[in-house]
Amino acid sequence: MNAEAPTPVPLWRRLSAEFLGTGLLVAIVVGSGIMAERLSSSDVGLQLLENSLATALGLVALILVFQPVSGAHLNPVVTLADRALGAALRPSGILGYVLVQIAGAIGGAVLANFMFGVATTMSTKDRLDTGHLLGEVIATAGLVLVIFALVRTGRAALAAPVVAAWIGAAYWFTSSTSFANPAVTIGRMFSDTFGGIAPTSAPWFIGAQIIGGAVGVGLVLLFFPIRTVTSKG
Amino acid sequence: MNAEAPTPVPLWRRLSAEFLGTGLLVAIVVGSGIMAERLSSSDVGLQLLENSLATALGLVALILVFQPVSGAHLNPVVTLADRALGAALRPSGILGYVLVQIAGAIGGAVLANFMFGVATTMSTKDRLDTGHLLGEVIATAGLVLVIFALVRTGRAALAAPVVAAWIGAAYWFTSSTSFANPAVTIGRMFSDTFGGIAPTSAPWFIGAQIIGGAVGVGLVLLFFPIRTVTSKG
Amino acid sequence: MNAEAPTPVPLWRRLSAEFLGTGLLVAIVVGSGIMAERLSSSDVGLQLLENSLATALGLVALILVFQPVSGAHLNPVVTLADRALGAALRPSGILGYVLVQIAGAIGGAVLANFMFGVATTMSTKDRLDTGHLLGEVIATAGLVLVIFALVRTGRAALAAPVVAAWIGAAYWFTSSTSFANPAVTIGRMFSDTFGGIAPTSAPWFIGAQIIGGAVGVGLVLLFFPIRTVTSKG
Amino acid sequence: MNAEAPTPVPLWRRLSAEFLGTGLLVAIVVGSGIMAERLSSSDVGLQLLENSLATALGLVALILVFQPVSGAHLNPVVTLADRALGAALRPSGILGYVLVQIAGAIGGAVLANFMFGVATTMSTKDRLDTGHLLGEVIATAGLVLVIFALVRTGRAALAAPVVAAWIGAAYWFTSSTSFANPAVTIGRMFSDTFGGIAPTSAPWFIGAQIIGGAVGVGLVLLFFPIRTVTSKG
Repeated sequence: MNAEAPTPVPLWRRLSAEFLGTGLLVAIVVGSGIMAERLSSSDVGLQLLENSLATALGLVALILVFQPVSGAHLNPVVTLADRALGAALRPSGILGYVLVQIAGAIGGAVLANFMFGVATTMSTKDRLDTGHLLGEVIATAGLVLVIFALVRTGRAALAAPVVAAWIGAAYWFTSSTSFANPAVTIGRMFSDTFGGIAPTSAPWFIGAQIIGGAVGVGLVLLFFPIRTVTSKG
Repeated sequence: MNAEAPTPVPLWRRLSAEFLGTGLLVAIVVGSGIMAERLSSSDVGLQLLENSLATALGLVALILVFQPVSGAHLNPVVTLADRALGAALRPSGILGYVLVQIAGAIGGAVLANFMFGVATTMSTKDRLDTGHLLGEVIATAGLVLVIFALVRTGRAALAAPVVAAWIGAAYWFTSSTSFANPAVTIGRMFSDTFGGIAPTSAPWFIGAQIIGGAVGVGLVLLFFPIRTVTSKG
Repeated sequence: MNAEAPTPVPLWRRLSAEFLGTGLLVAIVVGSGIMAERLSSSDVGLQLLENSLATALGLVALILVFQPVSGAHLNPVVTLADRALGAALRPSGILGYVLVQIAGAIGGAVLANFMFGVATTMSTKDRLDTGHLLGEVIATAGLVLVIFALVRTGRAALAAPVVAAWIGAAYWFTSSTSFANPAVTIGRMFSDTFGGIAPTSAPWFIGAQIIGGAVGVGLVLLFFPIRTVTSKG
Repeated sequence: MNAEAPTPVPLWRRLSAEFLGTGLLVAIVVGSGIMAERLSSSDVGLQLLENSLATALGLVALILVFQPVSGAHLNPVVTLADRALGAALRPSGILGYVLVQIAGAIGGAVLANFMFGVATTMSTKDRLDTGHLLGEVIATAGLVLVIFALVRTGRAALAAPVVAAWIGAAYWFTSSTSFANPAVTIGRMFSDTFGGIAPTSAPWFIGAQIIGGAVGVGLVLLFFPIRTVTSKG
């Protein structure tokens, strides 16, 4: 998505954007999960509906705000895929992006816990399951395909609603409810609530997401081998 | 929608796009149906709400991704209507599109089953009913009208959200919950879950969809007899 | 909204568009109401949520399809407001629009009944209440203000999603659930289901809608006294 | 958002727009809350889902209607932030904006009460809680950041859907359900229903919102120090 980023944004500002953006994303995911769990206690599907709609709406706003600053990756897989597909970010910049995404994600979970008066403890929610890992591969591959299909066809301005639509759908059609983001996965270990994930499950999810990211890059190269420079959308 | 497709996309890439796109569409329809059925077991309406929102959101992403590659038909009726309304696709291309759409659809159902740990067996869900068949005619005619109304008025870039809106509404206002797609109908035979359809009902649905497609082409010719070449939207 | 309509669309085609468009609108409102009532029998709020979302999504598609043909009024109040605010439609055209809107609306209710296997009988749902009538005035005034605010500032291309948003909100914040359309009100008398309205209540609703339309025209003249000719949006 | 406002709109028209717009916003928030509370009595989460979706949809329509007239602030914090970030509004104009926003908000609550046959009495809903106040700071800071990120990057035309998305998400992820608006907070004191707030809680919410507004202005200056003059979006 960095086709949108004006060239001279200094790195510290980009890192601040990735930190705050990823933090707010996790605060939205975890916070809306707590709210849903408390208010709709009798139907888990309704909880997931509330959680997924809040996440999709939040993504629209966060991506549009931070896209001109840092590209609004908010996700290490997107940062790595961006580099693999030709972005000019240096290794130190990539490392910086990933570290602040993770730090922001943890901060966002702690913030959500605090807002809702929940102590920050590690999640005990075991999510390990073969089907779930396949779900993470598919959700992440699709996410990378969606983003770079738009970027490579001159439609990066549409990334916010389309990424939100993909994630909103993936919450439901993948059995894992689509984490699709290693930083967010790490952040979600720090809340023992609806959106949490046990530290024993998280590494498997992250591994599946990295595989999914690689699959996604392959699909981008298959379907959009050339960076077109049209400015449609 | 192929007004969007750059001319030189090779056929193998277009067929790959139709295969993957239709596969993901069915995975979304079937997968979100399983998720909804499991989590919202006490209210079938809520299940359909979750299923329909996930489908609509997924359609937005899939159409935007694959539109520049293959036109994002993801539906044999759309491919045939596109030809009837003047597209340059050859008979072999049409046959290829339809075959990969069907193959992708079946693959998508199997994939969704696997993610959720459901064995792939044929659906036992009888959906045969006169009102349902009328529903399929209306849903499919409307789908064709929506797509080619946009194409013929230079607004093909809006196809993704508007098709999603039409299908999202048609899930609710047609008694059949709007399959509106022969390939998807075939794929949905391969999952004995919320979104399934019994093989005894499917041919009737497909027949109604083909009739609906013809009605839709007639409506397009009635309301949009001339291909305008403006570039609005 | 007829700023969008290319000048030479013959009247018979415009009338056909208003007939089919209003018919499908009522089929969507009534049909999704029946579906919601059947599937979510334990929570009337959930029924209204399903009904309102289906209506909003359907409006997006219908307005975008028919806007270049007839202006997509689909509502006698909009046709009259359009004339009051300066459209060139002749009295015979206005009468034609209103008559086909009403005929389409009745046809749409009958169609929805048939799809769901419901006999067409007059609604017995009494909706008469002072608060409801005030709700209709507000909903209709807001509808007219929304449409012509966009038209008069060169943003008519946004009418579909914004009208849908307004109606989606008005379903909830007006006590009457926002009919806001005399033709649709007449059509909804012909289904004794969730979306129906008793013939004894309908004239009061229609009267309130006409008053609301006049209030809306006044607000348009207050806030947008000059037709700007910019082409933003 | 006043980048959109044509220069010569007279102040009386701008004040009328802020009055009516804020009034309708509160009528939507309070009215949809009453409707949700009555129809979905068994699940508070479902009530909040209905209330939040109606609010988000209503915001889309209201901002698009009033943006060319008054900038569609509808919120004293936005008016103050607009001034702090360089708008040309004079002190008397600012005072006028804030006063009519408050008057409109109270009127909107009374109107909603009347439509639903509820007597206007002060709310007894105590919402005072440290987590809630932090939620208001975050929701308001994010609102200011969203609006001025778009304005300063030439995308003010996107403000309506993006503000709606942010507020829709913030209803769920902040523990306070995101009032984020001092005028709306005052208006909501005047309805002892779902959306109400006790007069003993309101000043604390307003204080937190003002702090949030200041934080938001700081974030805008951090991430978007220069007003770019591109016209993307």
